Amino acid sequence: MADWGEFGFIEALCQRLPPASGALRIGIGDDASWWRPESGNGILTTTDMLVAGVHFDLSYTSAADLGYKSLAVNLSDLAAMGAKPVCVYLSLGLPAALKKTWLDEFIDAFLELAEVYDVQLAGGDTVAARELVISVTLNGLAPAPSPLLRSGAVVGDDIYVSGSIGDSFLGLQLLQGCLQPDTNASAATDFLQSRHLRPQARIALGELLAASGRVSAMLDVSDGVVADLDHILVASGGLGAEIEGRRIPLSPAARQFVAAGRIALRDLLTGGEDYELLFTAAPAGRQKIAEIATRTGVDLTRIGQITEKDTILLFANGVFEELSGRGGYDHFHN
Amino acid sequence: MADWGEFGFIEALCQRLPPASGALRIGIGDDASWWRPESGNGILTTTDMLVAGVHFDLSYTSAADLGYKSLAVNLSDLAAMGAKPVCVYLSLGLPAALKKTWLDEFIDAFLELAEVYDVQLAGGDTVAARELVISVTLNGLAPAPSPLLRSGAVVGDDIYVSGSIGDSFLGLQLLQGCLQPDTNASAATDFLQSRHLRPQARIALGELLAASGRVSAMLDVSDGVVADLDHILVASGGLGAEIEGRRIPLSPAARQFVAAGRIALRDLLTGGEDYELLFTAAPAGRQKIAEIATRTGVDLTRIGQITEKDTILLFANGVFEELSGRGGYDHFHN
Repeated sequence: MADWGEFGFIEALCQRLPPASGALRIGIGDDASWWRPESGNGILTTTDMLVAGVHFDLSYTSAADLGYKSLAVNLSDLAAMGAKPVCVYLSLGLPAALKKTWLDEFIDAFLELAEVYDVQLAGGDTVAARELVISVTLNGLAPAPSPLLRSGAVVGDDIYVSGSIGDSFLGLQLLQGCLQPDTNASAATDFLQSRHLRPQARIALGELLAASGRVSAMLDVSDGVVADLDHILVASGGLGAEIEGRRIPLSPAARQFVAAGRIALRDLLTGGEDYELLFTAAPAGRQKIAEIATRTGVDLTRIGQITEKDTILLFANGVFEELSGRGGYDHFHN
Repeated sequence: MADWGEFGFIEALCQRLPPASGALRIGIGDDASWWRPESGNGILTTTDMLVAGVHFDLSYTSAADLGYKSLAVNLSDLAAMGAKPVCVYLSLGLPAALKKTWLDEFIDAFLELAEVYDVQLAGGDTVAARELVISVTLNGLAPAPSPLLRSGAVVGDDIYVSGSIGDSFLGLQLLQGCLQPDTNASAATDFLQSRHLRPQARIALGELLAASGRVSAMLDVSDGVVADLDHILVASGGLGAEIEGRRIPLSPAARQFVAAGRIALRDLLTGGEDYELLFTAAPAGRQKIAEIATRTGVDLTRIGQITEKDTILLFANGVFEELSGRGGYDHFHN
């Protein structure tokens, strides 16, 4: 960065951004951005900080992957509330050695994803730093009648998860060289790695689930199905859950690893970074939820039920196993 | 940080926060915060990233000073739009060697200042990092009829600045040992250093100026009066300004340094980090602005006028001097 300067980057960035439009009245360039949302349901805000070497490894994460993912994880947080994302703020701590081409690729991928969801880059900050730090804040509109919170699950509710589980964890193991890829299955390897590097935020699905009035609690799976389910159980007043192993939705690629005994189902349930939606709903909502699955083309799989006792049990191969999801986790994060 | 853990800190933080109230429905603990502002004038959002060794020097900045200032600079950005701050988001990159007492003092000062302005900590992120990184995002309500932007100054407008100028720069010079303090003036030294370490955001003043309908352009002085005035001139379509040296408001402490020839007025105009409000208004607004000064108890000094030609001239000691404020600056920042 030292040799090309911060200002050139910002100048170029501002020139390629479209003028503020829609809800956004004033974007980059004043003391603050100004946006006038239509909705009377309120504003949802989420923020994430990513640090090189802690949250990502530049040896296998391209600039474009990182630009994509640093926005995608925030989109996923808003999806988990049923929100419509509107304005994003990007702050970068940039080391002196960073190449301009790297930053260009990062920004290209970030803005490309923003465009897909009609999100406008409305501000941020760029500063010098010893290590690469990315801080993203995303503002969105709350759905009517209310955002979907983590609290609200009740005994007897079904537990659902979208898409498939464990792909991201397998992709990470492959990227890190902890698992060897199947030599005859390079498409499967690509798929799993891309599920880790390019997670898809379930924005449209989240909006439909919020509008359905059927969902009692929801979040996105970042810490792993077990830990995130536990967040719902704690937030809902200390409930428990039973999960059926045979119902856990696995991609064909993940299924192969499990069938070959190369990974345990349990590891896929605790691996994390799935960025799928995990939610609960009373059994009366089953038909409505099936309709939403059809409409969005995203599998919504019923994997178990909320119970009274304060544990998470996995039923697999004819036996119950207790999964301990409880423990310290980041309450602060949102 | 390694020895006491992130979770204990977050747990303790959440326990001391009051429950979400007023506009804030859901604070820390879900995927995103949820707030329902009353105002139909829209939302103003500002964000800042601070990095140890770049934006602050821990050798003379206490944890409490830094906790205070990392919120104050964002409050000042909203003050510069005439906004009412509502919800703040704090993300921290924390080095392993950081002491718990340091972080406690940081948070105490941050929350104490938040309380003064009725701002609620509604979310954030804490992550491991090699160096201390602080990223703050602040959401607030836009004033009616509109926020005060940097654009909008016209030829003939008066130029005003609140409070006094250059104290923060002198304070920084004293803290860094670049200036030697006057041995008979420790109160002056304390005052100047505190103006650097504990700048006061002009929230109430900003709200009154926005409501007055008299202000044509406004920002807060962070880069220095000259550079920030230039931001207004550029944003307003390429105007110029004449500033009268004798009108520049100096504190008694700063005046002493200038009188003793130990610092040039020009340096105080370019030093930066004043966090005073710099604004323009047509001469017809003079009485109204004087009333606001009386009401808030904050000096509002007319220091010059907007001109047609594309330069900033300082008139002092009987001669005009051209001040070059133009040059690369951070457009991206808000």
